[in-house]
Amino acid sequence: MREVAVIAPHPDDEVLGCGGTIARLAAAGSRVHVITVTRGQPPHFDQDAVDEVTAQAAAAHRRLGVHQSHFLDLPAARLDTVGQAEVNAQVGALLDQVAPDVLFLPFYGDIHHDHRIAFTAAMVWARPRHSRTPASIWAYETLSETNWFAPPATPSFIPTAFVDISDTIEAKLAAFACYGSQLKNFPDERSPEAILALAQIRGATVYRPAAEAFALIRAIL
Amino acid sequence: MREVAVIAPHPDDEVLGCGGTIARLAAAGSRVHVITVTRGQPPHFDQDAVDEVTAQAAAAHRRLGVHQSHFLDLPAARLDTVGQAEVNAQVGALLDQVAPDVLFLPFYGDIHHDHRIAFTAAMVWARPRHSRTPASIWAYETLSETNWFAPPATPSFIPTAFVDISDTIEAKLAAFACYGSQLKNFPDERSPEAILALAQIRGATVYRPAAEAFALIRAIL
Amino acid sequence: MREVAVIAPHPDDEVLGCGGTIARLAAAGSRVHVITVTRGQPPHFDQDAVDEVTAQAAAAHRRLGVHQSHFLDLPAARLDTVGQAEVNAQVGALLDQVAPDVLFLPFYGDIHHDHRIAFTAAMVWARPRHSRTPASIWAYETLSETNWFAPPATPSFIPTAFVDISDTIEAKLAAFACYGSQLKNFPDERSPEAILALAQIRGATVYRPAAEAFALIRAIL
Amino acid sequence: MREVAVIAPHPDDEVLGCGGTIARLAAAGSRVHVITVTRGQPPHFDQDAVDEVTAQAAAAHRRLGVHQSHFLDLPAARLDTVGQAEVNAQVGALLDQVAPDVLFLPFYGDIHHDHRIAFTAAMVWARPRHSRTPASIWAYETLSETNWFAPPATPSFIPTAFVDISDTIEAKLAAFACYGSQLKNFPDERSPEAILALAQIRGATVYRPAAEAFALIRAIL
Amino acid sequence: MREVAVIAPHPDDEVLGCGGTIARLAAAGSRVHVITVTRGQPPHFDQDAVDEVTAQAAAAHRRLGVHQSHFLDLPAARLDTVGQAEVNAQVGALLDQVAPDVLFLPFYGDIHHDHRIAFTAAMVWARPRHSRTPASIWAYETLSETNWFAPPATPSFIPTAFVDISDTIEAKLAAFACYGSQLKNFPDERSPEAILALAQIRGATVYRPAAEAFALIRAIL
Amino acid sequence: MREVAVIAPHPDDEVLGCGGTIARLAAAGSRVHVITVTRGQPPHFDQDAVDEVTAQAAAAHRRLGVHQSHFLDLPAARLDTVGQAEVNAQVGALLDQVAPDVLFLPFYGDIHHDHRIAFTAAMVWARPRHSRTPASIWAYETLSETNWFAPPATPSFIPTAFVDISDTIEAKLAAFACYGSQLKNFPDERSPEAILALAQIRGATVYRPAAEAFALIRAIL
Repeated sequence: MREVAVIAPHPDDEVLGCGGTIARLAAAGSRVHVITVTRGQPPHFDQDAVDEVTAQAAAAHRRLGVHQSHFLDLPAARLDTVGQAEVNAQVGALLDQVAPDVLFLPFYGDIHHDHRIAFTAAMVWARPRHSRTPASIWAYETLSETNWFAPPATPSFIPTAFVDISDTIEAKLAAFACYGSQLKNFPDERSPEAILALAQIRGATVYRPAAEAFALIRAIL
Repeated sequence: MREVAVIAPHPDDEVLGCGGTIARLAAAGSRVHVITVTRGQPPHFDQDAVDEVTAQAAAAHRRLGVHQSHFLDLPAARLDTVGQAEVNAQVGALLDQVAPDVLFLPFYGDIHHDHRIAFTAAMVWARPRHSRTPASIWAYETLSETNWFAPPATPSFIPTAFVDISDTIEAKLAAFACYGSQLKNFPDERSPEAILALAQIRGATVYRPAAEAFALIRAIL
Repeated sequence: MREVAVIAPHPDDEVLGCGGTIARLAAAGSRVHVITVTRGQPPHFDQDAVDEVTAQAAAAHRRLGVHQSHFLDLPAARLDTVGQAEVNAQVGALLDQVAPDVLFLPFYGDIHHDHRIAFTAAMVWARPRHSRTPASIWAYETLSETNWFAPPATPSFIPTAFVDISDTIEAKLAAFACYGSQLKNFPDERSPEAILALAQIRGATVYRPAAEAFALIRAIL
Repeated sequence: MREVAVIAPHPDDEVLGCGGTIARLAAAGSRVHVITVTRGQPPHFDQDAVDEVTAQAAAAHRRLGVHQSHFLDLPAARLDTVGQAEVNAQVGALLDQVAPDVLFLPFYGDIHHDHRIAFTAAMVWARPRHSRTPASIWAYETLSETNWFAPPATPSFIPTAFVDISDTIEAKLAAFACYGSQLKNFPDERSPEAILALAQIRGATVYRPAAEAFALIRAIL
Repeated sequence: MREVAVIAPHPDDEVLGCGGTIARLAAAGSRVHVITVTRGQPPHFDQDAVDEVTAQAAAAHRRLGVHQSHFLDLPAARLDTVGQAEVNAQVGALLDQVAPDVLFLPFYGDIHHDHRIAFTAAMVWARPRHSRTPASIWAYETLSETNWFAPPATPSFIPTAFVDISDTIEAKLAAFACYGSQLKNFPDERSPEAILALAQIRGATVYRPAAEAFALIRAIL
Repeated sequence: MREVAVIAPHPDDEVLGCGGTIARLAAAGSRVHVITVTRGQPPHFDQDAVDEVTAQAAAAHRRLGVHQSHFLDLPAARLDTVGQAEVNAQVGALLDQVAPDVLFLPFYGDIHHDHRIAFTAAMVWARPRHSRTPASIWAYETLSETNWFAPPATPSFIPTAFVDISDTIEAKLAAFACYGSQLKNFPDERSPEAILALAQIRGATVYRPAAEAFALIRAIL
């Protein structure tokens, strides 16, 4: 049994990026922890809406078989005002508890700077200063974040690994449906149709009906 | 009315890469020329099969509204044995006739070296040594070619332009269906399902039901 | 008639980066808005000097035919202390008003971090969450900013579009001359000679007497 | 038990690039096949020397526990004169026999063009047109080849996976010693000291005494 | 005699990155200045430990023949909370005093954001707005920083220059030994064995027993 | 006194790329060798025209102070049909004679494949297998070649070194004028105006009236 940690800058990133993989790993016996790094905070966010999203996250995680959901209280959309060291400290403390073998991160080149800062915090924690660093670290792609920045001036998401989610694409779609407030109508990227189309094209690339794509950041074998 | 040239290393690349765009441009009054650079040649290819593909191309082009189909006799899958200068000469002579304002090319980083050589030949022809060079040059992505090489060691396809093909995705699928011999079952990348999924995800990226993605190589405005 | 928005981190970036293009678009009937993101603020900047630069900007914009000049009050050279979300909010509010079809941005890889932050704010606003996102977004190059960072460790400016400014290079030079305080003697990059040389070499690349170069960030066609 | 294939453009590349990994996999029960793509041919190479190298390869492979050594007769240092399609055919036919789950390739950006052509041939074979494509493909680094070209103009080797070879670094050094004719004195890159230093620094990067570094090309999980 | 400045984000970076080069330049008569940009500050750092590190730096610099050691009081690990403009001002004021001909910088893509900010501050100072800008600027690699981020999503260190430190590798190791508190046991990257292995492999790449590798940022010849 | 070798794929590349640098080095006492790799060959080239170009090269080289001009007989525009090994052999034999300390090469990413092949041949020769490899290797940019390919899909020319040619820009222009047959009218890139504009903008980047830009490939210091 393996410990798996998924870093989500905001609720729902974990489902968009690796919902199918989470469900597959959980079904195979891994203990998957989701660490949501930020929370919307007044006055920029409405407290009721934030509470609702947290409840939605809990429902989505149940649907995927997440072992434990962790929520940090760092300010959503304002992670750059906190300072990288403080984010490192809070993310690192939680990762020390979880002690994951496998780590899933948002992509460094996503348009939202919270993604870049959360990615960096996890990488700082994962520096190989002892033999207990994670055996593998992967970056996931997030609809509405990864396709909307400006490569090649900003980093380009180049997938090198494809996880077959043919058996869990339904769970992924159901988990995303839990986030009613985030659900948009096609052709918005945050629609079931777009999620399915991405899974199909990532799948077809490797002759599978559905897949999630990842960029391997570092594996120690 | 504009003259448009599409360079296809092999029959069907033009449909996979820009079938929807061809149909849209043709419907809007452009004259679209498809230049198929190679032909399968015995003993490596069966003559009957080659003739069949050529007939399929003609049918596909009719479906899209292609103005004229041009076929060069360079050897398929063996373009590197001919020498770049000879390919340049033959592709260039045809482009001199067509004198396109807009040029669509296969992507330089595709896994098939015929794509790289055909791209280069067209770029050599398009060198801006006079004021009649094309106003814009675009690279298209080809299912089963663009996703199957090895970025970042090989060039990564980074789309910067998205053409709305919501009105012509049906024509694109119908044109590809003309290539019966190339049609595979999903989850092969050369299946209708994969073509549709790619169109949907490229579309959703820009809030359109279906799109084809291109990398702008050079525009003169 | 099209609405065009140019994002200038500081006064004069808009002239260095796309003065000739602004003049050409304005002459052709587009309504060009220049949004200057920062203002020098005491004690780091002298108030009289700041007022002078604002007046110079007005004169330069008149010379180019700018439809409207907008000035935000964010602190020059200290945009990173404000937080990305606040910059996003202020830049976004103005762009909501202008509702541009075409958007010109400073380059993400410029040495000045205000350029990176302003670029990002505009890109966040332009996320394609509806069908009214700009049809095209371009990054311009700025003498004294774009050539002075550290590619390939920092992003390299790779031009893909060239706008013929043969008819407006004079207007560009005249507009830059309005910024008397920013004008340096050759061989400084901010001299008329350097501006002209860059226009000539960008022009010669596409067989035009003078051009401005841009990197296409995203077009929706 | 897994089938593993290592593509070596020339004899000894397989040891330099993944000798320690081969030994570890073999010890763990995998069947490792080494496919040497080229052979020195008169008049460019002396027949006796070529025979000697082939014998050395056999000895080295025994030392590492290679299951089977395959030698193609393509001309060393002249692979570009054969044509990519012919190389594809010969490499592909052998890979069809071996049917590997895991594939190790030379790096596409190595200075020797035989490496680029051999890499491409294996990638063409591995196109995911069915569900039997290899589960993972890795590029290895080769002393005297990978460090001697010209990044960033040529592709840069960016390792993403590190295989702990602490238990097999001795076997790797012993296998390389079998290639007496290729062994140079330090500070030549093809010396035992350089091989050991590279293993140590790749190891220290992940807190292991010795490692081999790889770039993941594609994994299907 | 040349003036040389080395920017160290934290004490010991200068030794890991260019200790051998410092010793060689000093021995040849250059005046080498080390500018340490940050200092650990309570409550995040223990004052006694900070004082100890400062004393260790002095000892290490003596061992290398550093002409003068400069310490700024910017907060370690929290440089992003200060604002880039303030860092620019303090680093720039010192560089104005030193007026170096040659400038050594940490690498922009290191995992620690203090490295990125310090690099940028020095580059802002070095903008070529007069004829006294440094003749050359180089980025060095730092064990435990440069190998631990995430290329290609983050910038990749691509060395283009190799300084032979065969005669000063001993001095480098001795200087690093002065930093007792930073010294770790192999296989940690901050161990004498790892430092030596890196010097050997960088050396072997250019047929030298030991070398330090640099990426040339800009030379004016 | 240093030995300098300049590799020119075709006559005039050496002047466009580093004519000013050649003149400056020659004036300072270096012995500059120009190695022209290809010659136009019937039936693709007219013999009289080829002879004329060779005479023009001799005149241009005299004007720059070239120590010795070497002409190989490899076929212009058809270097890919010869095979890399044969080009390596011929270029390498000449470089063995010259034994340069400094090596100037065309850029690997130029649109003309002869440039790529000539670059590679020189790099193969320069592999550091002994202590006599050149101390530095530089890639130059060539008007009409370097700007006309397709970055980022093809390699981007990123200059890291700037040679002040304020005193020799006249000699460069005079040398290029010797190539009457290659001289075009502005705005062609091969015109005196374009050459001058490029020198001015490369100069202004480093506060010099005129410069040639280079990418450092490898220095051993």
